[in-house]
Amino acid sequence: MSHKAKAYILPFGQGLENVCTEETRTFINEHFDAVWNTSNQPYSHEQMAHILEDAEILLSSWGTPKLTPDLLQKASKLRYVGHAAGSVKGCLTKDIFAHDIKVFSGAPRLALSVGEYCLTVLLALLRRIPQCSSAVKQGAWWEIPERNQGHELTGNTIGIVSASSTARAFLQLLAPFKVKVLLYDPYLTEEHAQKLGVQLASIEDVMRCPIISIHAPSLPSTDNLIHKDLIQSISDGAILINSSRGSVLDEDALLKELQTGRFFAALDVFKKEPIIQDSPFTKLDNVLVTPHIAGHSVECFKALMLEIAQDIQRSSHNEPTRYEIYERMWEVLA
Amino acid sequence: MSHKAKAYILPFGQGLENVCTEETRTFINEHFDAVWNTSNQPYSHEQMAHILEDAEILLSSWGTPKLTPDLLQKASKLRYVGHAAGSVKGCLTKDIFAHDIKVFSGAPRLALSVGEYCLTVLLALLRRIPQCSSAVKQGAWWEIPERNQGHELTGNTIGIVSASSTARAFLQLLAPFKVKVLLYDPYLTEEHAQKLGVQLASIEDVMRCPIISIHAPSLPSTDNLIHKDLIQSISDGAILINSSRGSVLDEDALLKELQTGRFFAALDVFKKEPIIQDSPFTKLDNVLVTPHIAGHSVECFKALMLEIAQDIQRSSHNEPTRYEIYERMWEVLA
Repeated sequence: MSHKAKAYILPFGQGLENVCTEETRTFINEHFDAVWNTSNQPYSHEQMAHILEDAEILLSSWGTPKLTPDLLQKASKLRYVGHAAGSVKGCLTKDIFAHDIKVFSGAPRLALSVGEYCLTVLLALLRRIPQCSSAVKQGAWWEIPERNQGHELTGNTIGIVSASSTARAFLQLLAPFKVKVLLYDPYLTEEHAQKLGVQLASIEDVMRCPIISIHAPSLPSTDNLIHKDLIQSISDGAILINSSRGSVLDEDALLKELQTGRFFAALDVFKKEPIIQDSPFTKLDNVLVTPHIAGHSVECFKALMLEIAQDIQRSSHNEPTRYEIYERMWEVLA
Repeated sequence: MSHKAKAYILPFGQGLENVCTEETRTFINEHFDAVWNTSNQPYSHEQMAHILEDAEILLSSWGTPKLTPDLLQKASKLRYVGHAAGSVKGCLTKDIFAHDIKVFSGAPRLALSVGEYCLTVLLALLRRIPQCSSAVKQGAWWEIPERNQGHELTGNTIGIVSASSTARAFLQLLAPFKVKVLLYDPYLTEEHAQKLGVQLASIEDVMRCPIISIHAPSLPSTDNLIHKDLIQSISDGAILINSSRGSVLDEDALLKELQTGRFFAALDVFKKEPIIQDSPFTKLDNVLVTPHIAGHSVECFKALMLEIAQDIQRSSHNEPTRYEIYERMWEVLA
């Protein structure tokens, strides 16, 4: 851009602090004609309408106002929307692509943290860390490993549901472990599977692997994708990880199977969050429940808005981008 | 060997089962003239003396009789000792090298499991998994990540004490995380450090890293190597992992520092094991205590005796070996 583009940064207060460092602020002020939301409350619909009269760039994040179709009609100068958070579907609709506006999503950056989370809980359950730690607190020692036999990840087999960005981030970290990966994804071609170093498989075969990690986006087509029969087909001693969304599996059927103690699970997401007080999932020794933190890390959050802003800057110079999303991706986007 | 070498397998009962699968038994019976200890008790000193009159190969493991110097005097035909366990120093003395006997140790195989353990507990503490899991059980949810801010491993800096086989196994698994590694090891050359992709550093610099992993063998020279001053120099928010031996650090000083809550630790080893009932280490939210399980995994144990036996077989054919140890390694051997 020859002039500095008018950029409105929608998040404010703590929500802004979470995703924006001093470095980010400096970058944005240097490259854009930046207007920060200093009101300590979200812009109203009227304020958004006013903003969009001259906004060329919008930077949004968790909890910022949605770019509704009527607002879009007013956004005659808007060229870039950068969402420094996970799912752009919360902040805009598919209509945006009809307006020649480029859209950037922080999801691929969050995916790196999710990939680390998946490896973390997988290793913790394989080695029975929560069980061993708890037994030590109860006064046991040498008898613990006999009762909680740990397993190595190296050479193991992993079934993955959906080749999403979080799955790809996870796969990167698995490289040194020389695992065999079966992957179910109706959209993935054989050629792409080969590039990822995975073997395409049916969802039935994936769910019978000794390790299963679910990465399916929450979409009408993935609702209860992991149904009761598939949950019952999980092998004894297996480890199931869900870092995607609670909607993708039959939670009641999963609870029932987990209550038998047959296999292990790390669950970061649930159909309803927060989970209920004294949720039966939290009572089980074979289940590790975390509070929707898979994408949550200091480094990731601090990088989100900067990397999105840098990407917009690159795009304005016709340089390759990392976070741009396209209309054709919409249907399968989380 | 043109004939089948006489091989005595010392472990018995559960101790044998732990390290010997059907496949191992078949391999040993096929390649050696094998004598198994079917007595369900360890051989006595007298039985050992008798055995050593014709033993060409000895396979030992945890808890099998020590090859004392007087026994060695009788072992005129002994050519190979394979120890399917961690530390050969428990089963033989340095004298053995004067007898032209080749010695094989399972330590490098155990190191692979230790490497996985180190990554496991490191990731778990970085992402505050024990803290988050425990808070969920207490009924919290959205407020948890704010109070237990997780960190990514990618791009982080790790300080490692001693370039032992466990450290090397750990380093292998760190490859995708693009970490910077500072390593203290008085025996490591600059050239070797470069090959390992690490930077040689003083122990003071290593102990100031945000992540510290201790891999020093238990030797007179490493006794309290990590002394009080070094423990006090650990950075706020750091993560300390000890998977080597309790003797290498000042446990009282460590406890005192950990009780301030300043930093985190994963401790698998202690000066005295089992640790005392209600050990103060187990009362701290910032400490993950595991019961000396770093090398303990089903896959590792099941592989131990087979890989040692295969190595002896390779050695007998003058092929390259993986587990042989040499007299020059003795001083720094765990």
